[in-house]
Amino acid sequence: MDNFILKNENAIYYECGFSCDNVIFLSLGSEKFFITDARYTIEAKELSKNCEVIESSDIVQEAKNILKKQNIKEIIFDPNDFTTYFYNSLKKDLDIVFKEELNFSKLKRLIKSDSEIKLLKKASVLGRSGFSEFAKYIREKGLNKSEKELFFQNYKSLSKKAKYDISFSAIIAINENAAKPHALPTSKKLKKDDLILVDAGIKYKRYCSDRTCTSVADFSNFTFEREQKFKNKKQQKVYNIVLKAQELTIKNTKSGMMAKDVDKIARDYIDKAGYGKYFVHSTGHGVGLDIHEFPNINSKNEMIIEENMVFTVEPGIYIPNLFGVRIEDCISIQNGRATVL
Amino acid sequence: MDNFILKNENAIYYECGFSCDNVIFLSLGSEKFFITDARYTIEAKELSKNCEVIESSDIVQEAKNILKKQNIKEIIFDPNDFTTYFYNSLKKDLDIVFKEELNFSKLKRLIKSDSEIKLLKKASVLGRSGFSEFAKYIREKGLNKSEKELFFQNYKSLSKKAKYDISFSAIIAINENAAKPHALPTSKKLKKDDLILVDAGIKYKRYCSDRTCTSVADFSNFTFEREQKFKNKKQQKVYNIVLKAQELTIKNTKSGMMAKDVDKIARDYIDKAGYGKYFVHSTGHGVGLDIHEFPNINSKNEMIIEENMVFTVEPGIYIPNLFGVRIEDCISIQNGRATVL
Repeated sequence: MDNFILKNENAIYYECGFSCDNVIFLSLGSEKFFITDARYTIEAKELSKNCEVIESSDIVQEAKNILKKQNIKEIIFDPNDFTTYFYNSLKKDLDIVFKEELNFSKLKRLIKSDSEIKLLKKASVLGRSGFSEFAKYIREKGLNKSEKELFFQNYKSLSKKAKYDISFSAIIAINENAAKPHALPTSKKLKKDDLILVDAGIKYKRYCSDRTCTSVADFSNFTFEREQKFKNKKQQKVYNIVLKAQELTIKNTKSGMMAKDVDKIARDYIDKAGYGKYFVHSTGHGVGLDIHEFPNINSKNEMIIEENMVFTVEPGIYIPNLFGVRIEDCISIQNGRATVL
Repeated sequence: MDNFILKNENAIYYECGFSCDNVIFLSLGSEKFFITDARYTIEAKELSKNCEVIESSDIVQEAKNILKKQNIKEIIFDPNDFTTYFYNSLKKDLDIVFKEELNFSKLKRLIKSDSEIKLLKKASVLGRSGFSEFAKYIREKGLNKSEKELFFQNYKSLSKKAKYDISFSAIIAINENAAKPHALPTSKKLKKDDLILVDAGIKYKRYCSDRTCTSVADFSNFTFEREQKFKNKKQQKVYNIVLKAQELTIKNTKSGMMAKDVDKIARDYIDKAGYGKYFVHSTGHGVGLDIHEFPNINSKNEMIIEENMVFTVEPGIYIPNLFGVRIEDCISIQNGRATVL
């Protein structure tokens, strides 16, 4: 068994079912060590599995001592997981080959277990229920509310008043602001018949949800459902194209395809509709403990899609200074097909 | 002038008044380059000062091209600012000495300008106003609310419904939970006469506030003022000791002292009162663009306290399984003395 060392919280959680913000995890043959400080040892001992919890006020030195004592010759690490400072501190006075494996943990987490898929499904269900509550708020009180205030209400609805962590800072963007794929909320206010894009998610037992809806601000009847009736004809046209692209992609994604072929389904449809140059990002990304995992669903990735992968399908069209539309759901590959979580 | 390279968002903001999450900043003699991707160039050109904005889809390669073209021989970086992956990518094929200077930017930011102190003051004033609003909520509706729900209400009050970013995830801890200096909010509910510790802050124009109050849950009269009347005598005794330690420290901190002497004021007072072993952390930390800056106010730091430094004074006593008390304010050194912001 290869030896490896981890610092990243989610990578460590994946190995042993517990994590915290000051820990080094060592996997040395069949032995695993969770090295942390006094603040976390009680919980670590209670909640972590298959590892020895070691308390130290100097976790780097403790890791070095263990590596020396066990006479380790080679150990794998992810160069994105270490700062240069940490790497240099660790390496100093140790006669060990540190072997770089980029995205070591994320690649291990590429195929989800059935129980992980259950957690991701639960996260998605809770996330959608938050969207429904947020839709109710917009119906009743959304008129003239700013993106910032809507951002707050979205947090309230999705997190169920902070009962759940959110998986990332939500995007709430009206009309031309929605033309920026990563818009920050502003003081722009929601008016009747505006287009509003909402991209948000929560965490359930550390597993993330991720969903984007684009809706028309019809206050008497506001929903985040897929069927939307925009007053603005161009918005309706673009919305229909994105919706169809997303539905086609979900329908035709199969295990055995390459990730770039999944991307191509959405991209070709949008291209043919004449909006290709406005689809400025990739079609999706893996989701798990991290909001961005593998596989990347872009035009270049030749990774093969496999059973129990989980990723987003989120085509979008962004017309600068006018508006943007994105529709996103998380899917898992089940029985060879994409199933919305 | 020394050449340097930065990746950290706040470090870059400090140099040029703008930042984003995908940027490399180069300072080469008198020339400064802000290298970012198409998402950020418009705002960067509008808002950054004294630097040339360069758009690139591969910012690492662009930085390498500039370093080569300018024939740079040596450049300073902070080893905590780079991942091993970034450092290796940057270094590859470049014949340049990368000179490590740990905490390069944070050390530059140690002494605040007068205008930075104004922003930090404004952040503290806004933060206190959020605490007052949160106190009103507790008076009126706090009874039987869980730490998680109070966490949400605290976010609502401090951020003014997300108008302001918060400077860190707040600590809301009741009774024995307050004995953990970094408690996470739980479902424990607030009852009459409970002790509640609240540690929270906001950002104003990117500058942080940081404040901790410990109060008694007297619902008819709940405040975060310094005067508190606990029903529990031991809580009152410990509260009075921490309050006096904090007041003494603020009163006696002077420029020219070493940081460890500031720590010693609080620590000696708590020691003499018999609670030294329960004061398990340092007395304070610098505050600025980051919530944790320099100087560290701990028992070992020999850094000299100077005019226009800004740091927290936050002694605490934590009695395991019973309760904890911490009282924290941000101060700046003005005319040689500590002034609460």
